[in-house]
Amino acid sequence: MKSEVSVLEGARIFPLLATLTLGIIIWFIPVPSGLKVEAWHLFAIFLSTIVGIILKVLPIGAVAIIGIAVVAITGVLDPNSTKGAVKLALSGFSNHVIWLIVLAFFIARGFIKTGLGSRIAYIFVRAFGKKTLGLSYSLLGADLILAPAVPSNTARGGGIIYPILRSLSESFGSLPDGKTNRKIGSFLILSAFQGNIITSAMFMTAMAANPLAVKLAGDLGVEITWTGWALAALVPGIIALVVIPYFIYKIFPPQIKETLNAPKIANEKLKEMGSIKIQEYIMLATFVMLLVMWIFGKSLGINGTAAALTGLGVLLVTGVLTWGDVKKETGAWDTLVWFSALVMMATYLNKLGFISWFSGNVQGVVGDMSWYIAFPVLITVYVYVHYFFASATAQVAAMYAAFLSLGIAVGVPPMLMALSLAFMSNIYATMTHYGTGPAPVFFGSGYVELKDWWRIGFYISVIQMFIWLGIGGVWWKVLGIW
Amino acid sequence: MKSEVSVLEGARIFPLLATLTLGIIIWFIPVPSGLKVEAWHLFAIFLSTIVGIILKVLPIGAVAIIGIAVVAITGVLDPNSTKGAVKLALSGFSNHVIWLIVLAFFIARGFIKTGLGSRIAYIFVRAFGKKTLGLSYSLLGADLILAPAVPSNTARGGGIIYPILRSLSESFGSLPDGKTNRKIGSFLILSAFQGNIITSAMFMTAMAANPLAVKLAGDLGVEITWTGWALAALVPGIIALVVIPYFIYKIFPPQIKETLNAPKIANEKLKEMGSIKIQEYIMLATFVMLLVMWIFGKSLGINGTAAALTGLGVLLVTGVLTWGDVKKETGAWDTLVWFSALVMMATYLNKLGFISWFSGNVQGVVGDMSWYIAFPVLITVYVYVHYFFASATAQVAAMYAAFLSLGIAVGVPPMLMALSLAFMSNIYATMTHYGTGPAPVFFGSGYVELKDWWRIGFYISVIQMFIWLGIGGVWWKVLGIW
Repeated sequence: MKSEVSVLEGARIFPLLATLTLGIIIWFIPVPSGLKVEAWHLFAIFLSTIVGIILKVLPIGAVAIIGIAVVAITGVLDPNSTKGAVKLALSGFSNHVIWLIVLAFFIARGFIKTGLGSRIAYIFVRAFGKKTLGLSYSLLGADLILAPAVPSNTARGGGIIYPILRSLSESFGSLPDGKTNRKIGSFLILSAFQGNIITSAMFMTAMAANPLAVKLAGDLGVEITWTGWALAALVPGIIALVVIPYFIYKIFPPQIKETLNAPKIANEKLKEMGSIKIQEYIMLATFVMLLVMWIFGKSLGINGTAAALTGLGVLLVTGVLTWGDVKKETGAWDTLVWFSALVMMATYLNKLGFISWFSGNVQGVVGDMSWYIAFPVLITVYVYVHYFFASATAQVAAMYAAFLSLGIAVGVPPMLMALSLAFMSNIYATMTHYGTGPAPVFFGSGYVELKDWWRIGFYISVIQMFIWLGIGGVWWKVLGIW
Repeated sequence: MKSEVSVLEGARIFPLLATLTLGIIIWFIPVPSGLKVEAWHLFAIFLSTIVGIILKVLPIGAVAIIGIAVVAITGVLDPNSTKGAVKLALSGFSNHVIWLIVLAFFIARGFIKTGLGSRIAYIFVRAFGKKTLGLSYSLLGADLILAPAVPSNTARGGGIIYPILRSLSESFGSLPDGKTNRKIGSFLILSAFQGNIITSAMFMTAMAANPLAVKLAGDLGVEITWTGWALAALVPGIIALVVIPYFIYKIFPPQIKETLNAPKIANEKLKEMGSIKIQEYIMLATFVMLLVMWIFGKSLGINGTAAALTGLGVLLVTGVLTWGDVKKETGAWDTLVWFSALVMMATYLNKLGFISWFSGNVQGVVGDMSWYIAFPVLITVYVYVHYFFASATAQVAAMYAAFLSLGIAVGVPPMLMALSLAFMSNIYATMTHYGTGPAPVFFGSGYVELKDWWRIGFYISVIQMFIWLGIGGVWWKVLGIW
C-alpha cells in the first residue's frame, strides 16, 4: 500500500513553535509605558526573526521573507495605510549599502571566473605561504594599508580582501561545502572579518559611520581631529591586529597550518596558468578603477555604490561576466533578501522610538553612579545592544549622541567618552553576521557556521573591550586624553 | 602558435555604439527651454536604455544595470549629493508593485514544482482542449470573471492566469527554449496578456490605476460611477475580447491548432498522476487564500503585495517551496533588476518635470484645433507616449489630469474625454513589455521574442483604438455620453 502523504521539507517544527510562541508572548505583553504600541510590536517581530535565524527554523532568507511578510500584513509600520505599510516593509531593498554588498558578490565572481583571483592567490602563496597564520597577517596588512583611504569597510573587506581570500581558500581545496571549510577557509574568513573591524576603528576615514560620530561629538563640544583619532587608536589597534588573529588561530584552528611546500606548488601553478588572459587584464583594470574610485571617491564626487555599479557595468559590457553569471549568483540574492529585512526592522525600531526608549531606560539605571562605574556600564550596554542592529551606521545615528551626553552628564571626561564610543562603534560589529556592511559578505561565503560566528564573535568582543578600554585607557592617560 | 587574445562575449559592438552615440547626442543637445537640465539628461539615459534594450546590446537586465550605473554616476537625480543620487537610483528596488511581480514568479514556481499546475492544465484540456483558440478564450473567460473583483491586474494576470497557461504550454511540450515556443506557448502568452489588458479596462475595480483616474476626473467635475464605467466599456470590451485573440491567432499562429485527441490524453495523464498530493493541497489552499486576500483585500485591509509575501511564507514554512527554489528563480531576479531600473527612470522623468514639459508642448500644438481634431490627437499622443512609461499607474498620475483638462478646454464633452482617457490608460499597455504590471511576468516567461511582442503590440494598439473610440464612440452616443 503506497502512502499518500509525502513528507514535507519545510520549517523545523519545534524551533518554529518556540519562535512563534516568543513572538506572540512579547506582542501581547502590555506595552511598556513611554513606548508606542507599533514600536513594541515591531520589536516582537524583530526578536522573533533574530531567534528564528539563530534556531535555524528555515534558511535565513526564508525567515527574512516571513519577517517582512509579518511586518507587511500586520501593518505595524503604517497602521493607517495597508499600501504604506507594505512600502515601508520593502524599503530595505533599495538601501545603497546593501547594494554595495550585493554588487561586491557579483564582482567577486569575476575574480573567480577569470582565474585572476587564483593567480593573485598563488602569488600571495608564493610570497607568504609557508604558514597559515602568516598568510592571515599578510591579508590584514593589505587591509590596514588601504584603511585610511577607503572609507567603505564593505568595499575594503567585501570588495577587495574577500575575493582574494576566497580564491586562496579554493586553491587549497577548502570550499564552503560542509566538508573542507575548516581546512583553511573558515579561519581566513573569520580573521579577515575581525581584522577588518580593527582597521575600521583605527582611522576616522576607515569606516562610513566614523565621520558621523565625529560630527555628533562636535555638536556636543568635543572636537576629534583626524590625527587625534589615529594616535589614540594606534596602540590598541596594533595590539588587537596582532592578538585577535592569533586568538582565532588557537580557538578555531585551521587544519592546514604548515604549508612549507606551498610556495613551490604555487610557482608551478602560475607557470601552468601561462600569461595573463585578456579577461584577467580587464578584471584587473576594473579592480584598479574601483580602488581609485573608492579611495578618491570623496574628491572625485563618486559614491561607493555608484562605483560598484559602474564596475559591474564594465564587466558586463566586456563579457568578463555574463548576465547569466549575475542572475545565478544566488548568494547575492540571498543576502539582498535577509539583509534588507534586518535593515528595514532596525531602521524602524529607531524611527518608532524603540531605541531612544531603550536608551532612556538605561539612563534611569546609571543616573546616580560615579563615572568610574557608569563609564564601563555605558560602554558595555552600547556594545551589546548592537545585537539588535543590522548596521554599524544605524546605531551611531541612533545612540551615539545620547550615550555621549549621558557619559558627560555623569562626569566621564568628554574626549575619553567620545573616542571610546567611536572606537566601540566599530568593535561592536564583532558579534553578529549582520552588524556591519562586510559581515554578510564574509558570512555569506558559507565557510563559517552561525554558531561559531556568534560564539567566537562574543569572545572577541570581550578581548577587544579589554584591549581598547584597558590597555587603550592607559595609553590615553599617557596622551593626556583624561 | 596559440592566440593569447580570447574572444569576449560581451556587448554587441554596433548596437552598443549606436546606443551610446544616441545618448551622448541627446545629452549634449542644448536643453529645451522650460526644462531642467537634470530632466533632459535623465531623458537621454532613459531613451538610451530603451534603445539598448530594443537593439539587444546585452540582455535586458545587464542594460538595466548599466542604466542604473549611469544614473548613479552622473548624479542626475541629485546633483548636490553623490550618496543621495545613488539612493534615488536604487529607489525602484523597493517598489511594492515590482515585488508583487517578483513574488508572483516564486508562487508560480509552486504550481509547476508540485504538479498542481499540470493537473489544472489537464483538467482544462479535458474540458476545452479540442482547439487552441477555444483554449485561449476559456482562459480569458476566467480572467473576465475575476476582473471586477481583483483590482491588481498583476495578481490576476501574473499570479493566477500565468501559472496555469505556463503549465498548459509545458504539457503540450512547448517550452521557452527557442525551439518549441511557437507550438502553443507564445500564442497563449500573448493572447492572455492582451486579454488581461481588455478585462482591466472593463471595470473600475479591475486595475489599480482605474480608481485614480476616477478620482482625478472627479476633481475636474466629471463624476464617473462604477456602473457608468462598466456600461460604457461593455460593448467595446466584449468586441475586443472576441477580436484580439482571433487577430493574434491569425498573425502569430500557434503550430498546434487542432488538438482533437488532447482531451483523451489529458484524461490518461490525470489518471497517471493519481490522487492529489499533500503539497498540491497546500498549494491549492495557498492559491485560494491568495485569491480571497486579493479579492477582498480592500475590506480585509490587506495589500496585494502583503498577501503575496504571506503566500510565499506559507509555501516556505510547509516546504512546498524551499529557499533554494526561491534563490534559483533567476527570472524573478532578472525582472527585479530591469523593472526597477525602468520604474526608477519613469518616476523621476515625472518628478523632474519632463512629463509636464512634454504635456505643455502638446498643448501648444492642439490649442487652436476644433475638438473633433483635438480629441483623436490628444488620445493618440496619450496612448503612444506610454512607450516611455514603465507602469500604467505612473502615466495616469502624471498625465491623466493634464490631458483631461486640455480636452475639456478645447471643447471635448467632459465625460467622453474622461472615459476615453480612462479606458486608454489600460489599452496603452498593449505595446511594450514593461507598460503594466503583468507585462514583465508574461514577457519574462521567455515565450515571445521582444520584436514580436512590440510589433504585434503596436498593431493591436491600432485595432484597440478603432474598437474603443470608433465602435465605442457610437455606443457612447447611444448611451447619451456625448
